[in-house]
Amino acid sequence: MIKQYIESNKDRFLEELFEVLRIQSISAVSSHKGDMVKCAEWLQSSLLSAGADKAEVMPTEGNPVVYAEKIIDPSLKTVLIYGHYDVMPVDPIELWDNDPFDPIIKGDRIYARGANDDKGQVFMQVKAFEYMVQNGTLPCNVKFMLEGEEEIGSKSLYKWCADNKELLSADVILVSDTSLLAWDTPSVTCGLRGLCYMEVEVTGPNKDLHSGLFGGAVANPANVLTRLVSSLVDDNGKITIPHFYDDVRDLTDAEKAAFNLAPFNVEDYKKGLDIDAVEGEAGYSTMERTGVRPSLDVNGIWGGYIEEGTKTVIPSSASAKISMRLVPNQDYMKISKLFEEHFMSIAPKSVKVKVQFLHGGQPYVSPTDLPAYKAASAALTQSFGKEPLPYFSGGSIPIISGFEEILGLKSILMGFGLDEDNIHSPNESYGIANFYKGIETIVYFFDHYSKS
Amino acid sequence: MIKQYIESNKDRFLEELFEVLRIQSISAVSSHKGDMVKCAEWLQSSLLSAGADKAEVMPTEGNPVVYAEKIIDPSLKTVLIYGHYDVMPVDPIELWDNDPFDPIIKGDRIYARGANDDKGQVFMQVKAFEYMVQNGTLPCNVKFMLEGEEEIGSKSLYKWCADNKELLSADVILVSDTSLLAWDTPSVTCGLRGLCYMEVEVTGPNKDLHSGLFGGAVANPANVLTRLVSSLVDDNGKITIPHFYDDVRDLTDAEKAAFNLAPFNVEDYKKGLDIDAVEGEAGYSTMERTGVRPSLDVNGIWGGYIEEGTKTVIPSSASAKISMRLVPNQDYMKISKLFEEHFMSIAPKSVKVKVQFLHGGQPYVSPTDLPAYKAASAALTQSFGKEPLPYFSGGSIPIISGFEEILGLKSILMGFGLDEDNIHSPNESYGIANFYKGIETIVYFFDHYSKS
Repeated sequence: MIKQYIESNKDRFLEELFEVLRIQSISAVSSHKGDMVKCAEWLQSSLLSAGADKAEVMPTEGNPVVYAEKIIDPSLKTVLIYGHYDVMPVDPIELWDNDPFDPIIKGDRIYARGANDDKGQVFMQVKAFEYMVQNGTLPCNVKFMLEGEEEIGSKSLYKWCADNKELLSADVILVSDTSLLAWDTPSVTCGLRGLCYMEVEVTGPNKDLHSGLFGGAVANPANVLTRLVSSLVDDNGKITIPHFYDDVRDLTDAEKAAFNLAPFNVEDYKKGLDIDAVEGEAGYSTMERTGVRPSLDVNGIWGGYIEEGTKTVIPSSASAKISMRLVPNQDYMKISKLFEEHFMSIAPKSVKVKVQFLHGGQPYVSPTDLPAYKAASAALTQSFGKEPLPYFSGGSIPIISGFEEILGLKSILMGFGLDEDNIHSPNESYGIANFYKGIETIVYFFDHYSKS
Repeated sequence: MIKQYIESNKDRFLEELFEVLRIQSISAVSSHKGDMVKCAEWLQSSLLSAGADKAEVMPTEGNPVVYAEKIIDPSLKTVLIYGHYDVMPVDPIELWDNDPFDPIIKGDRIYARGANDDKGQVFMQVKAFEYMVQNGTLPCNVKFMLEGEEEIGSKSLYKWCADNKELLSADVILVSDTSLLAWDTPSVTCGLRGLCYMEVEVTGPNKDLHSGLFGGAVANPANVLTRLVSSLVDDNGKITIPHFYDDVRDLTDAEKAAFNLAPFNVEDYKKGLDIDAVEGEAGYSTMERTGVRPSLDVNGIWGGYIEEGTKTVIPSSASAKISMRLVPNQDYMKISKLFEEHFMSIAPKSVKVKVQFLHGGQPYVSPTDLPAYKAASAALTQSFGKEPLPYFSGGSIPIISGFEEILGLKSILMGFGLDEDNIHSPNESYGIANFYKGIETIVYFFDHYSKS
């Protein structure tokens, strides 16, 4: 029994998880290159201990991929498990209550960078696998593909997948990198938004200028940047880039109704975020805004003097990182072109503008009539006692649509996080109950899927 | 003869100047507190060597003031020399070709932070004083008041002046902290803009959020900041804060004509800054825009992820430092209130906004019929062979109008910098010729003024 196995191994599971959480595998910062390899090697050894026939740290053009497999019978179904061992940067570090790389338990949660996203969720897969192997109940062949660049757009994985198609042959991909709607409202993610991440730089004078001597006579790049960026979204929350919405399909009334079935209380939502009002595209609910509508966010902005005190300067340049979330059937390559053309076209003659595409991914939809979706639904019903809702997440896992294109495989997004886990934020955490429940549910999934 | 004295002492003058330039007296950064005292003590000893009867480092609530005097005859006129020994921060440090605190000579210029602003110009006053004392030709009583907080708004000097009125009794204040229109177009600054420096912070959710899960449904403080800040100036370059222009006096046609007498070539100006177009308030020339019109500049802006790579985050807050240059008869205290009220009023309900006043100063005008103005004009005519133009500078020396209020004294702004000196910017420099010519001209000023 999986429940019993978890009960008798629960302390060991946490100890092992803490080991991998201690490795500072931040893919966005190049000085952590060594940690990426260290983390991959840790997972390799963990998969071998769990019972893999083989486990390898395979080089890519960037951070390595951990590949492992256990083939029990080629005539059985094969599940390819995907996850990532890289984590987000930890700044602003001063907002963490604890060292993000020294995991601790407070209350019923594990606090650390990556506790949920995605080391915690990947490790559930490893432990569910371990159980099935150790107990001789593994009903399918299993392959693992764990990458180290998800948080920076899975840059190298596309080519690596294309180069390793045969190795990766499978019936379906299983991914735990998403959230439940709530602990009492289990869900399977069947939609993901795409992503188009840009950086813009506005340059004015060839040097910083004294704002007294030049102020009012020379375009200030920081002022111009605020003008250009703010103009990208209008008063109704619509993105103003021409042709941006051309490929967006609006929901039918029936779909709208179904979509808003998920329990959602805007007052609780506002209270949780400590905001007095939500804000977004006019005519859409909050769930629609994050689930099926595109968005445009400034992820970072900087220019001029940003230290203590005052400096009367006109900065020579100012920059912003801007990302757009995309929905079916938008294409990030097309959107990045539209963005670039538009941004260049609105820049005044008084400045120079540079637009750079940083990374992107396509939106994804998983139909609810797939056998693997049904198996996930049955597994969650078994462990949570409640049939899960299909959920359109606002997040992006760009590589998921890549898998469909390159490997011809659909992915089942069965994740166990919760909104309050603060992934990508200070004090990321993961519920201990979610961790154990995830392991349990994954075992059920294999059982249901093998019989489908 | 002053010219001869300069010739025989020129190397020593530079060596001494380099000593004071090496002291990192950055007033905006509190870790440099010790350097402020060090710099004040250096000037104290320099003034004593030059011939002051006494020189003191006098405490204030902030950085100390260096006070020195030489009273030769109480019945003679007294000139109070004002300057500052603090300098601007040096970032972005990577744009400096040399260590900003290790002065060097390249071509005919001295490169260092403070080479011009204001250590270089203060030191001309010290050396002119030294000459007159050493040669027994000092024709007036002299007092020095050198402060260490000019670049952060002279915060402590107002109270210090009020507390030391008697000590500071004089007939006029002489200041070298401004520029010439050009080497071949000498000028005396007779107008300065005022300054009102604010900081704003826009806060949304109580933590950084994942821009996928929340993007489009929650107001992004960085997006909102760009909206609010960009709305402060309209398409015609007019500041949109209600009642902002109420006290601004427009130039008469005759004044406009006189004002535009100063030589100015917009093509050279654009070329010098490497910009394709100037930008500013519609209906005004570049000289008018900086000389007699107010302006609003973003001096710094920051929020979200600003490091290498990408992070898909909605920042919890975003901030900007915004300063306005003011013209007669605007009042910075009134303007800071108008700014605050307006900024709060335009903030949407979806965010919280904090507005902070950082520092300010009133605009200043010096009439050209003052005896001391005439003495400055005669001195420049004598040394440059050309009558100087009265010049309305766009810069601010907030304390100058403070002196008028507190001490009842007018200031003569006879500075020797040039536009190309990059004050407040990387690679600040000062022409060696300007340095020596300044010393010479100051000696002539004392002569003319004593006879007026």
